[in-house]
Amino acid sequence: MSRRLLDDISQITLIGTGLLGASVTLGLKARGYKGRIIGVGRRQSSADEALRRGAVDEAVTDAGPAVRKSGLVIVAVPLGNFETVFRQIAPHDHDDLVITDVGSTKLSVLAAAKAALPEPSRFVGSHPMAGSEQQGAAAADPNLCAGKPCIVTPADDTRLAALAVVEELWQRLGMKLIRMTPQEHDAQAAVISHLPHAVSVLLVQVAKQCGGWDIASTGFRDTTRLASSNPPMRADILEANRAQVVAALKTFRGELDQFTQMLERGDRDGLLELLQSCQSMRESWLRSRDASAEETEATS
Amino acid sequence: MSRRLLDDISQITLIGTGLLGASVTLGLKARGYKGRIIGVGRRQSSADEALRRGAVDEAVTDAGPAVRKSGLVIVAVPLGNFETVFRQIAPHDHDDLVITDVGSTKLSVLAAAKAALPEPSRFVGSHPMAGSEQQGAAAADPNLCAGKPCIVTPADDTRLAALAVVEELWQRLGMKLIRMTPQEHDAQAAVISHLPHAVSVLLVQVAKQCGGWDIASTGFRDTTRLASSNPPMRADILEANRAQVVAALKTFRGELDQFTQMLERGDRDGLLELLQSCQSMRESWLRSRDASAEETEATS
Repeated sequence: MSRRLLDDISQITLIGTGLLGASVTLGLKARGYKGRIIGVGRRQSSADEALRRGAVDEAVTDAGPAVRKSGLVIVAVPLGNFETVFRQIAPHDHDDLVITDVGSTKLSVLAAAKAALPEPSRFVGSHPMAGSEQQGAAAADPNLCAGKPCIVTPADDTRLAALAVVEELWQRLGMKLIRMTPQEHDAQAAVISHLPHAVSVLLVQVAKQCGGWDIASTGFRDTTRLASSNPPMRADILEANRAQVVAALKTFRGELDQFTQMLERGDRDGLLELLQSCQSMRESWLRSRDASAEETEATS
Repeated sequence: MSRRLLDDISQITLIGTGLLGASVTLGLKARGYKGRIIGVGRRQSSADEALRRGAVDEAVTDAGPAVRKSGLVIVAVPLGNFETVFRQIAPHDHDDLVITDVGSTKLSVLAAAKAALPEPSRFVGSHPMAGSEQQGAAAADPNLCAGKPCIVTPADDTRLAALAVVEELWQRLGMKLIRMTPQEHDAQAAVISHLPHAVSVLLVQVAKQCGGWDIASTGFRDTTRLASSNPPMRADILEANRAQVVAALKTFRGELDQFTQMLERGDRDGLLELLQSCQSMRESWLRSRDASAEETEATS
């Protein structure tokens, strides 16, 4: 394959026309992409919703003909469906095709690509860190991704020309690119995303057993927000990233035990030191995050 | 003491002129309380700030003379200072005085009242569930409490006349009254407030060790929000409610272990059931909370 720019690609196929996928293609159109975009839904009605929202130019259920004529395929389906989708792409794959995805775990998607695609070196895993509590293409937002981080996870044998197209895609949407290996991504996502989700659920579970709902206020609301996210999607993520999530849960458990022991033995100095170091770490993270959001805004 | 209304009380003393205390008295003034309000600060400068904000009519550092002429004292100091403050009140206590507080734990405050006050039956513990990330009387807000729950925790020997004054105080501010024992309050607060705080801190602690800050997004931000709250204040709360917090931490640990085991053995059905039941419990809590907030607005 030869290196080319996003605007040289005359057709893009979006497989999976949910909120995130439709927001990506709607954002591309809003930012001047002039090529044709085909939306492939598992059901015609979901693809039609993306068409009505203006996120795609054509709504179909058969990926094959669309993939054959496309230079880029964006796969935005639940984690459990990747291998099926890659097997549908495989017979129509061609040497000018670049494939990326928006899945929340990266090793499992790469493994599915390697198992099903004839040339996985043209596949580049991505994880745009943009979400919404809404669902479906009707709620698609062309600015959903703008200003947010996008992790791109090339493997050792990924082709540079494919990586260039995928990175341009996310930059076009105003995202802040972060490149790391699929392994690094999954270990870090376990710590800052999958573990917090599990902990949110467990806080609700403890309150279910022990009560306190009448007096629960904003602190409980915020710490448990992730417990409201889509259960099958979350179960997929936990399963796909099992080893790393279990490791994060065990590290957390060690810290929980130390905290409980400090409190039990009345070690106020130890507790205070922990609270202060975590407060100051979080505050400096928030400041660097705000600074980098301003930078992204200023340059996009 | 004879039963009387808040408006029959010609002077109120606020001891502790921080954000919450000053918001309470500012709210009383905004809602038509015409009596005199004396603000007692540990430092003159902090009482003066409440005076400038219009939350009190006089700013002093000596509680004695103010308490002698007051019908109601509101104690709004850090949890570690209650016994000292009650000992300052004691020599000036009189049979027409009602005393309440705004502390985050209720058994420890009641114990301090019993240890220091000559007649603890005129003390009624309160916990208005209103807070802000700001600090100091300059940021006081007359509507900080409006629409929020306030837990009032009478003991078996509390006098009804004292309870009536304290409940009228919080109702005047537009709060939704919830009455329970100090024991019930502390057990429930451990589950829905102190445990979520500890868990927030531990999520930051795990990320400090394992990394992932560059890709941390809104989920991490929200689940760790409580880790940014004031460390000495939080250490006070954890110590004052130690037994109940340790019990909540141990219940949480049991749930954490079960969750980890389900994930390790690939029990997708079990995981999905847990995620679904916690999602649905949280959603129904949010709905009842919204409904009750509307009700409070409509009736206040």
